[in-house]
Amino acid sequence: MIDGCPPRIPLSEDDIQRELDRRRPGQSAITTTRDEADHCRILSGVFEGQTLGTPISIIVMNKDARPDAYAEMKSTYRRPTPISPTKRSTAFAIGRAAAALPRGRPSAASPPVPSRAKILADLFPGFELLTYVNHVYDVSATIDPDGVTLEQVEANAVRCPDPVAAEKMVAAIEKARADGDSLGGTITCVARRTPAGLGEPVFDKLEADLAKAMLSLPASKGFEIGSGFAGTRMRGSEHNDAFEMRAGAVHTTTNHSGGVQGGISNGEDILFRVAFKPTSTIAREQRTVTAAGEETTLAARGRHDPCVLPRAVPM
Amino acid sequence: MIDGCPPRIPLSEDDIQRELDRRRPGQSAITTTRDEADHCRILSGVFEGQTLGTPISIIVMNKDARPDAYAEMKSTYRRPTPISPTKRSTAFAIGRAAAALPRGRPSAASPPVPSRAKILADLFPGFELLTYVNHVYDVSATIDPDGVTLEQVEANAVRCPDPVAAEKMVAAIEKARADGDSLGGTITCVARRTPAGLGEPVFDKLEADLAKAMLSLPASKGFEIGSGFAGTRMRGSEHNDAFEMRAGAVHTTTNHSGGVQGGISNGEDILFRVAFKPTSTIAREQRTVTAAGEETTLAARGRHDPCVLPRAVPM
Amino acid sequence: MIDGCPPRIPLSEDDIQRELDRRRPGQSAITTTRDEADHCRILSGVFEGQTLGTPISIIVMNKDARPDAYAEMKSTYRRPTPISPTKRSTAFAIGRAAAALPRGRPSAASPPVPSRAKILADLFPGFELLTYVNHVYDVSATIDPDGVTLEQVEANAVRCPDPVAAEKMVAAIEKARADGDSLGGTITCVARRTPAGLGEPVFDKLEADLAKAMLSLPASKGFEIGSGFAGTRMRGSEHNDAFEMRAGAVHTTTNHSGGVQGGISNGEDILFRVAFKPTSTIAREQRTVTAAGEETTLAARGRHDPCVLPRAVPM
Amino acid sequence: MIDGCPPRIPLSEDDIQRELDRRRPGQSAITTTRDEADHCRILSGVFEGQTLGTPISIIVMNKDARPDAYAEMKSTYRRPTPISPTKRSTAFAIGRAAAALPRGRPSAASPPVPSRAKILADLFPGFELLTYVNHVYDVSATIDPDGVTLEQVEANAVRCPDPVAAEKMVAAIEKARADGDSLGGTITCVARRTPAGLGEPVFDKLEADLAKAMLSLPASKGFEIGSGFAGTRMRGSEHNDAFEMRAGAVHTTTNHSGGVQGGISNGEDILFRVAFKPTSTIAREQRTVTAAGEETTLAARGRHDPCVLPRAVPM
Repeated sequence: MIDGCPPRIPLSEDDIQRELDRRRPGQSAITTTRDEADHCRILSGVFEGQTLGTPISIIVMNKDARPDAYAEMKSTYRRPTPISPTKRSTAFAIGRAAAALPRGRPSAASPPVPSRAKILADLFPGFELLTYVNHVYDVSATIDPDGVTLEQVEANAVRCPDPVAAEKMVAAIEKARADGDSLGGTITCVARRTPAGLGEPVFDKLEADLAKAMLSLPASKGFEIGSGFAGTRMRGSEHNDAFEMRAGAVHTTTNHSGGVQGGISNGEDILFRVAFKPTSTIAREQRTVTAAGEETTLAARGRHDPCVLPRAVPM
Repeated sequence: MIDGCPPRIPLSEDDIQRELDRRRPGQSAITTTRDEADHCRILSGVFEGQTLGTPISIIVMNKDARPDAYAEMKSTYRRPTPISPTKRSTAFAIGRAAAALPRGRPSAASPPVPSRAKILADLFPGFELLTYVNHVYDVSATIDPDGVTLEQVEANAVRCPDPVAAEKMVAAIEKARADGDSLGGTITCVARRTPAGLGEPVFDKLEADLAKAMLSLPASKGFEIGSGFAGTRMRGSEHNDAFEMRAGAVHTTTNHSGGVQGGISNGEDILFRVAFKPTSTIAREQRTVTAAGEETTLAARGRHDPCVLPRAVPM
Repeated sequence: MIDGCPPRIPLSEDDIQRELDRRRPGQSAITTTRDEADHCRILSGVFEGQTLGTPISIIVMNKDARPDAYAEMKSTYRRPTPISPTKRSTAFAIGRAAAALPRGRPSAASPPVPSRAKILADLFPGFELLTYVNHVYDVSATIDPDGVTLEQVEANAVRCPDPVAAEKMVAAIEKARADGDSLGGTITCVARRTPAGLGEPVFDKLEADLAKAMLSLPASKGFEIGSGFAGTRMRGSEHNDAFEMRAGAVHTTTNHSGGVQGGISNGEDILFRVAFKPTSTIAREQRTVTAAGEETTLAARGRHDPCVLPRAVPM
Repeated sequence: MIDGCPPRIPLSEDDIQRELDRRRPGQSAITTTRDEADHCRILSGVFEGQTLGTPISIIVMNKDARPDAYAEMKSTYRRPTPISPTKRSTAFAIGRAAAALPRGRPSAASPPVPSRAKILADLFPGFELLTYVNHVYDVSATIDPDGVTLEQVEANAVRCPDPVAAEKMVAAIEKARADGDSLGGTITCVARRTPAGLGEPVFDKLEADLAKAMLSLPASKGFEIGSGFAGTRMRGSEHNDAFEMRAGAVHTTTNHSGGVQGGISNGEDILFRVAFKPTSTIAREQRTVTAAGEETTLAARGRHDPCVLPRAVPM
């Protein structure tokens, strides 16, 4: 359910479905083989193809859940769901395992961002949001965030616009699957032609809100904007983005700030990266503890992605 | 102003002053020489040494502001305050520069975290929050987050508990000041004996709220929890924190998760790092643009920290 | 979607259905004859009959919508939907009319309160929430809020536990329907054995949150707690609730405060009333204006409740 | 502290002081004789007479508190502060009594509304907010909300623009003071030339937010918008506000809705009323209970308003 969308923005089920399809597993050899139909329906908030200003409810029914594949996890903690020193967290632990069953939660946790991008593009002509896989495990891509296009991102199964690196990533993911193992990586996000002035200077800084949104995605472990962690190894005189006049407007010569300064977008491209850990549910047997406190081992059954990165891109 | 604190927690101006003093500039050769008195007064919410459950107002009056040092910045954009393609962001830009004058804002932007730590310690016996400088520019420390103590952190001016690295950091910062330049770095935060069960599983995940809080600090550019960005170069079988029984309780053998799994604290130490860019206001002359759109240069006058890391630790 | 519910609270579709059925139209001669199936399904957040601590999604599909009955309202403003001096509010106006079509919105606007009451009763033994119709148009009931039971409320179609007044209310509503007109009234809510200490003293007072919740219900125009508007005609010495010891506990001799003092529940029964205007969509012809700015008349077709009060009780 | 104000709105300490002065006690014979200086200072968020877009901090120091007048209330519950069946609410009870000491809280609880009105008037030319006393105890005024002016409101000590009723109100309040008693009443608020389209259709309806704000004021017990509770005694055909064209714009012939329909302002005047109970702290002796559970009596010392209505107007 999405609240706060302005009225009269064109929005259809097809707009949303297109992005959901990108996130669906079973799209290629390297993702899980579950066939989740994921057909969306807009239940409210849109009338004759336009938003109404009222809350927009979207539902996606999962047609191919197999609860029995998760049965063992009811009493044996899946690596890594919360441990249970207290009753409260036991309930949560079981909750997390079970949460995968109805599969409604991931949609709630990660509202259809691309639809938001579409809405933003309607409000701010020229606005464009582009996301791609930057590295997987030990394979790093070489990509110019200024020039990359959606076609390049969608050209391969890993959604990495560097075709040489993409091939190596596919090989690495396939090897991990064969080993009953999994891989993590990083994703880059570029928001082009963002209007200046978004964000608040103290309590709801734009970079702070972006960090919260990204750390809300399952399996994410880190966020950096602009120069990020690497920028801590630069001197101020190198790092500062000098101002210059370009085509009659104030611009920065570099973009170490990542398009956000002091909580407010400055009109340059917004640029950030998100770290995703290797999927925790793997086929290999691993040590864990039962609800009764006995040590045991658990090997995940069911069909699991050895690498969430390609599917994380549309999220 | 802090709302939501439970009643009957002991809290005094001294508790807060102690932490404010740690953040004050002019504490050592490597920080700015401004003598800001920063004496705090609790205006409401505390009665006879205990919190009342009502909002707590704390005020810190700055005794040593020198507005004239900032005068030039009114029309020449300080590196990096927001640029001004629109009227709206011009207002913000000037606002940011001016915000430094009354100096009330930084306190608002970074509420007295240590007082919160004190409150948490009252609620959860044994809870301990420890923060230290992990690296500055090209100097990295070697620190065991499990064993480090507050005394070790406070033993030197950079608040880095590795004394050898600390000495090198001081030298690097002094050289940067001599050059009219500045340095960035990373800070590590450990929260020990945190109760399990804090955080929400979907909409207000603990790691997401921490990320937002950290990216709200001035000059921060990145956040990572547990294995963070480095964890993206591990395989799932290495990365997963296996569960085991220890002293009658469920624990994890490793702590790649950083004490938070799926949005909820798991009872292990919470462990995260924050990246701070090199201070942007430096004495060296740099290119910028005036409000009238003319290119010029600007060299910051006034007294500025060449490295915010030591003072960011108590924040 | 309900977030923030603690884990391990028993909750079933039947618990919710029972309350939804009470709200359904077509329950008696005096409510609309639309047969909305309103069968609910819990989509997430509940596992094996217990809440998980994750967000709870509940869906109710409407089986009997008749969009054609609303067609005329697309360009002729229904009394009272927002007027349209601006494009923005035009969109909203149409939105409001259309919002009735999918019928998902009213559920969102008024989350299943009785399920919340059930959850509260699980958390606080003895807690009981009871709501009833207090007056309709010119018929006022005589009811002792301390003694009234759910059975008395459900004993008649108007949900007024005073049987004599109830009969007059039914007659008044039937007459209004025959006239193509509608009636309003007030509802009383009693929350018994509420724990003391709920609510915040300044920014989220309990009475303020209750007022916001009640004014969020469709057609509500007023809220009063305890002595309310009538209490403004008492002197302080009469109005003050004196404290006394009763059965070993501090109690008040009267309850003019309505169980909430200074934002915080005091352990006495919480007592408030809500005013609902007469339904605006009526069969009689009324003056209005078209989207093109031309004056016209509009008589609602479709099946509409002449009085929302009985159905507002479970909301 | 006020967050979210747009930049470049003219705002001065004088703008705020003028309204604070209206709220100050000791302005006339009928209010308390405490001489609270209430001089405000803007600490941040305003630069050279204009808002910056950053949070605005305003402080008012109280120069004339007399803590000893409140000493007895530390262990004897003031009528009506929360009772104390639990430790938690005991703390709150004491908190509430003590909260009056620093006197900063009431400012926080009721942010300077007139400054907001000023800001709104800058954003929406012609916007005007007018509030007045409508009735006190058994004296009701006859006032046309369309024609009333600020001058008429400020013409007498009770801030009631009906001079005949005002005189009776003053007499009633003076009699109550002589009796050691107190009186309540109602206040009316009119917001003229409010833009259409404010408010959200489902989750943050304008009338719901107004109700929450009003029930956050100390001593308020009720809220009604437009026809309010009286409207429940009208038929739909009378109550509905018919639309008509007036001066080329859509208007309503009546304003029973109070300018808000379905959560959204419709461009008509916003009109609501708030009920305030008689002040609870009175000079007469009343029954209460000590913290030790013993019954006793308490007569308030100190200087207390026998009627908060005149001072509630500017709040």
